[in-house]
Amino acid sequence: MPSYGAGMSTDRAADFAALHDSETPLLLPNAWDYASGAALVAAGFAAIGTTSMGVAAAHGWADARGQGRDETVALAHRLVPLPCPVTVDIEAGFSTDAGEVADLAVELADSGVAGINIEDGRTGDTLADPHCQATLLATVKARAPRLFLNARIDTHWLTENPPPVAQTLARAKRYTEAGADGIFVPGLSADADIGALVTTTPAPINLLCSPRRTVDHLADLGVRRISTGSLLFRAALHAAVAAAEAVRDGQPIAEGVPGYTETQRLIGTEVR
Amino acid sequence: MPSYGAGMSTDRAADFAALHDSETPLLLPNAWDYASGAALVAAGFAAIGTTSMGVAAAHGWADARGQGRDETVALAHRLVPLPCPVTVDIEAGFSTDAGEVADLAVELADSGVAGINIEDGRTGDTLADPHCQATLLATVKARAPRLFLNARIDTHWLTENPPPVAQTLARAKRYTEAGADGIFVPGLSADADIGALVTTTPAPINLLCSPRRTVDHLADLGVRRISTGSLLFRAALHAAVAAAEAVRDGQPIAEGVPGYTETQRLIGTEVR
Repeated sequence: MPSYGAGMSTDRAADFAALHDSETPLLLPNAWDYASGAALVAAGFAAIGTTSMGVAAAHGWADARGQGRDETVALAHRLVPLPCPVTVDIEAGFSTDAGEVADLAVELADSGVAGINIEDGRTGDTLADPHCQATLLATVKARAPRLFLNARIDTHWLTENPPPVAQTLARAKRYTEAGADGIFVPGLSADADIGALVTTTPAPINLLCSPRRTVDHLADLGVRRISTGSLLFRAALHAAVAAAEAVRDGQPIAEGVPGYTETQRLIGTEVR
Repeated sequence: MPSYGAGMSTDRAADFAALHDSETPLLLPNAWDYASGAALVAAGFAAIGTTSMGVAAAHGWADARGQGRDETVALAHRLVPLPCPVTVDIEAGFSTDAGEVADLAVELADSGVAGINIEDGRTGDTLADPHCQATLLATVKARAPRLFLNARIDTHWLTENPPPVAQTLARAKRYTEAGADGIFVPGLSADADIGALVTTTPAPINLLCSPRRTVDHLADLGVRRISTGSLLFRAALHAAVAAAEAVRDGQPIAEGVPGYTETQRLIGTEVR
């Protein structure tokens, strides 16, 4: 696998930002370990993100509990040699202290990471005060200005009764004024709400894919970045169990699974 | 998820050894992280192994290069709280020194691991001298007598022209005399060779599953343990990329993929 820079500039953050301005939205698949990242790059995706749920689950703890700072940094270090920009999901920053979150952002930027995601959801399914979150984002942006700072708004995330979208729009306004380069609202699903967010927010809008929200449909609404979130991790977990059950039951394995040698070649030693 | 011991004895090594003597062969699925292990246990498998290829690839290096001792131990620590016996693939032991390999075996046994796999393949696709390997196995068995010691013979592994099976049988004899509790020969495929190995070896025989070697067929030949090796890891990797490509192409995702909440529940906090 070629190293970063082959056929691209060597400025990963600029390359990554530019992917939000291309003709079609950036489809960003989310990896949780080196192998998933390498396989997605080999499949031709232009950039990769990470999924905090996948990273947390791989290590044995639940998502969004503020665990896993060290493991998230270790994963970033493994992924940056891949020949594409990498953006890292740091949940809420693994700290309640804005300076410590900024330290993490600087550490990631120095390691070659192109972008980060910071969410305003907090443990216990609460939301950060929007003013405090804007201050946090401004602190991070000041310390790591080159990183593409994607601010996640959790008003519609895992919420059966989301608040009026006006609250989401207000947060998007605050966060972009604080320096966010992109706004990510997982769970936002009504076309009118998505359209309003796109229209009122000066930064690119990022949504999660879903069966009801195809890439083409979201592109038509003006969405600039579409993430897979934990979907790929969950699909992988499901396929592993299904393969074990197929062996147990004497059933055929799913078609197209790469062999041992092919997989070794994918991981390779060229990149490391 | 219940903790280990619910409905079983608390002697994991004894429980694991007994699984090699039950009516049907032990089908042992191989995990590479906590999530894959937890999902396989939740699916009802009686024990789980690890796959060194999966562990290596997840961390960004090729299999069987002797890297990953710390990561292998860390994974073992994550898996042992699961409510089933766990056996760990330690490749060739991550050291050329028998005492250091035995140190690792003791460390794993002390952490609650029920068994280990040690292979006689060496970097560069060579095989260990059988006498030296027997000495290594004897050293490990003396220091960690309770661990189920599965000795892997790599005569038929990734070899287009394997040596006569007599060499495999001779190694199996040496290794069991040195204290191996089981013999694992990945790649052995001719029924006559499998039958000869089963007949001449006093320990349970372990083979890899394959489309040509179903569980029922191997059971008929007298095989007592059937591993999935890196198959589940490779199936997972393939499914992740396939899901990303389906999103990109507006195609439906594979059926049965668990949702975010269901997956969070699987990982849970009960076990940790």
